[in-house]
Amino acid sequence: MKIDHIGIAVNSIENASKVYEAMLKKKLDHVIELPDRNLKVMMIKMGESEIELLQPIENNSKGICSFLEKKGEGLHHIAFKVNNFDETIENLKANGFRLIGEPTLGANGSRIIFLHPKSSNGTLIELCENTKEEA
Amino acid sequence: MKIDHIGIAVNSIENASKVYEAMLKKKLDHVIELPDRNLKVMMIKMGESEIELLQPIENNSKGICSFLEKKGEGLHHIAFKVNNFDETIENLKANGFRLIGEPTLGANGSRIIFLHPKSSNGTLIELCENTKEEA
Repeated sequence: MKIDHIGIAVNSIENASKVYEAMLKKKLDHVIELPDRNLKVMMIKMGESEIELLQPIENNSKGICSFLEKKGEGLHHIAFKVNNFDETIENLKANGFRLIGEPTLGANGSRIIFLHPKSSNGTLIELCENTKEEA
Repeated sequence: MKIDHIGIAVNSIENASKVYEAMLKKKLDHVIELPDRNLKVMMIKMGESEIELLQPIENNSKGICSFLEKKGEGLHHIAFKVNNFDETIENLKANGFRLIGEPTLGANGSRIIFLHPKSSNGTLIELCENTKEEA
């Protein structure tokens, strides 16, 4: 299992991307809009993983908005790339892990699901289906 | 630049490692003690990166202890592996980034330094020297 990405909640992708550009010496400009999830997203390639900057489109006091209100900008979740997505989910359920809702489509079009932090020792964990079977 | 590791603050490595063992289906048992930094550490290999579980040895209300008190268990920092460690630090300073103290030795023996979250958009970032020049 590999780290697919690390999600970082930010108030403004425009401001945050300037900081990451200066820090990583890399030009960043590609923003994806996910209106269904109320998110603007910028992916930053780091070796085999990515950093995912997450900004809410509108303040709706849920998800990332609620996180930003309570904790401020910073590390939000960690995503693992898994080969056998459905089997992994069934195994986790059988082992008592609590999943949040049903699988949905992530920023890159592959299926994703979140584990509730209460069953993963305080950390919000996302599972991303590896559709390329490369991991 | 690659992701070297992701640091996760936990109250008990013993308890957290059981959760990660069940989640990742992996046997975990190697704990490193870093008394100089008041830390017990467990590294979990994930592809080219690692997850670093961090538990304070004693409660001293600093660093990880302070984080656990204020925010509870969860994502604490992200570490990048850098090739030209001294040059990178000088460049960051020249670009206005604020570093915390001087370089020290990390869990794997390579030099590390932290960027202050105030200058890295809210996220505590660690830089680790890549002594193998593989990245």
